[in-house]
Amino acid sequence: MFLSPDQIRRVSSIGGGPIGGGWAAHFLARGYDVTTYLHDPAEIQAFQTILNTAWKSLTDLGLSQRASLDRLTIVYDVKEAVIGAEFIQESAPENLQMKQALYQTLGEIVPANVVIGSSTSGLMMSDIQADCSTPERTVIGHPFNPPYLLPLVEIVGGEKTDPAAVKWAGEFYNIAGKAPLLMKKEIPGFVATRLQEALWREALHMVANGEATPEDIDIALMNGPAPRMVTQGQCMAFHVACGEGGMATNLDQFGPALKLPWTRLVAPELTQELRDRMVDGCNEVAGDRHFSDMAAQRDREIVAVLKALRESRIG
Amino acid sequence: MFLSPDQIRRVSSIGGGPIGGGWAAHFLARGYDVTTYLHDPAEIQAFQTILNTAWKSLTDLGLSQRASLDRLTIVYDVKEAVIGAEFIQESAPENLQMKQALYQTLGEIVPANVVIGSSTSGLMMSDIQADCSTPERTVIGHPFNPPYLLPLVEIVGGEKTDPAAVKWAGEFYNIAGKAPLLMKKEIPGFVATRLQEALWREALHMVANGEATPEDIDIALMNGPAPRMVTQGQCMAFHVACGEGGMATNLDQFGPALKLPWTRLVAPELTQELRDRMVDGCNEVAGDRHFSDMAAQRDREIVAVLKALRESRIG
Repeated sequence: MFLSPDQIRRVSSIGGGPIGGGWAAHFLARGYDVTTYLHDPAEIQAFQTILNTAWKSLTDLGLSQRASLDRLTIVYDVKEAVIGAEFIQESAPENLQMKQALYQTLGEIVPANVVIGSSTSGLMMSDIQADCSTPERTVIGHPFNPPYLLPLVEIVGGEKTDPAAVKWAGEFYNIAGKAPLLMKKEIPGFVATRLQEALWREALHMVANGEATPEDIDIALMNGPAPRMVTQGQCMAFHVACGEGGMATNLDQFGPALKLPWTRLVAPELTQELRDRMVDGCNEVAGDRHFSDMAAQRDREIVAVLKALRESRIG
Repeated sequence: MFLSPDQIRRVSSIGGGPIGGGWAAHFLARGYDVTTYLHDPAEIQAFQTILNTAWKSLTDLGLSQRASLDRLTIVYDVKEAVIGAEFIQESAPENLQMKQALYQTLGEIVPANVVIGSSTSGLMMSDIQADCSTPERTVIGHPFNPPYLLPLVEIVGGEKTDPAAVKWAGEFYNIAGKAPLLMKKEIPGFVATRLQEALWREALHMVANGEATPEDIDIALMNGPAPRMVTQGQCMAFHVACGEGGMATNLDQFGPALKLPWTRLVAPELTQELRDRMVDGCNEVAGDRHFSDMAAQRDREIVAVLKALRESRIG
């Protein structure tokens, strides 16, 4: 089977654009040996710029003990890039035919016990792995831009993926310092982009209708939902804001507001099943913490974020 | 006309719930004399808890020189509450009949040169001011929860509101340490809630369809879009991510993705007019800053936010 996730030392990063370059920087900062494949020697200057930019922030955040830019090897041949690789992060262009051909090649030259993660944000693994002879170990490992800073990695397999590879990827990315999200289903846009896209399309509607400017949209987000969303997400933000009653109170009290024209997106029917899933899910996350402790933690974190931003903008 | 916004010293805060209590705390922290109206003496203990909780965070963030809890007066009579008030923040329950009756009273007992701002999140000022004999100075001044921490205040008038009162409110809230957003139109949910509501309804759809749990939603937001949204909003995040080409490149390259099922919300038609509004709006915000400087600032701020959260969670 697969190598133990905590024994991985050598990662191959396919692609030198903003995503591939960001991944290379991240893995180097976490102490891995990294081999980066560039399609064309002409890409090297842009790649180095991405790497150096990322390295500055990663150094600020704190490097792992083994971290060194000297652990990077750059090659221009895919076969050479994967020699000795114990994990492969693929960040090739978002072109299905190109990815299918690449996975056909990788499927043959990479030992079957090495997991391959794709950075794709718009394609499905079931499609990408179509021509791969060893699709069991291919998964989506989708980062958020900039990939060297934002912790999220969304993980999901395709139809032919072995669930063990998905589980392995979750453990590996976690050890590698990321925040993995094991998705329940293969859906377009995955989870984070779907949430962001709903907000984005509502923003476009508002601009189209003269209700707000792009500047208004950003002022609203930066000073309103975002400083809370970064500390609590959205479900727990509502759960904690409703005090003792939590998400149950939120849905019972504000459920009718789901019918109001507060966005162009029509809400799903608030069935008993959906209500229970929301309530049970929030109660599980809360565990035995009292809402007042969670509210106090929220406030401490919002204060910390606002102060950090203020100092960063002055400094 | 209205008093000069920088000469305001005495604020009346109507209502002692989480929003009214939060406003009282905010104005006290900024050095104002505050008279709070509570509907019922039984509310005082809950009000004091809100005030004390808020005061802790506000002290952490930094109080104004004149700030003192001793500047607070609590009364149980509306007429008494507005004596000498130079601005009124109304945070009564979200009940239209109750608000209409309240504004009828306030309209008669509050001098016409005093602006009245409503914290309502769901009602329209055109409706609230229906029975008010002096509606010209009534505006929406909608905060985001928790109101003592999140800077946003969305401002818009009703049909009978004098545009000068809206402008005045923008200046006053800015001086009072808030981040005012002067809305272009009176729309349900205002700007920030509309954006949040689109995201929220997409989240509910995902939970209803077994695509994600509440925990998944929050993991995705906290580790993905939110740390960037708090530093750049969404429009400038896309503008800067697209490098030299900015929002024009974003819309020209990813415009077709607006037709993809990446959320249940159908996007507006990407007309030339909408494209131009987005591009011009982002270019105006950017001014003469180069995208690489804005990207570097984004990275510094994301690093600062991630470090602040890490330290706040450990500490």
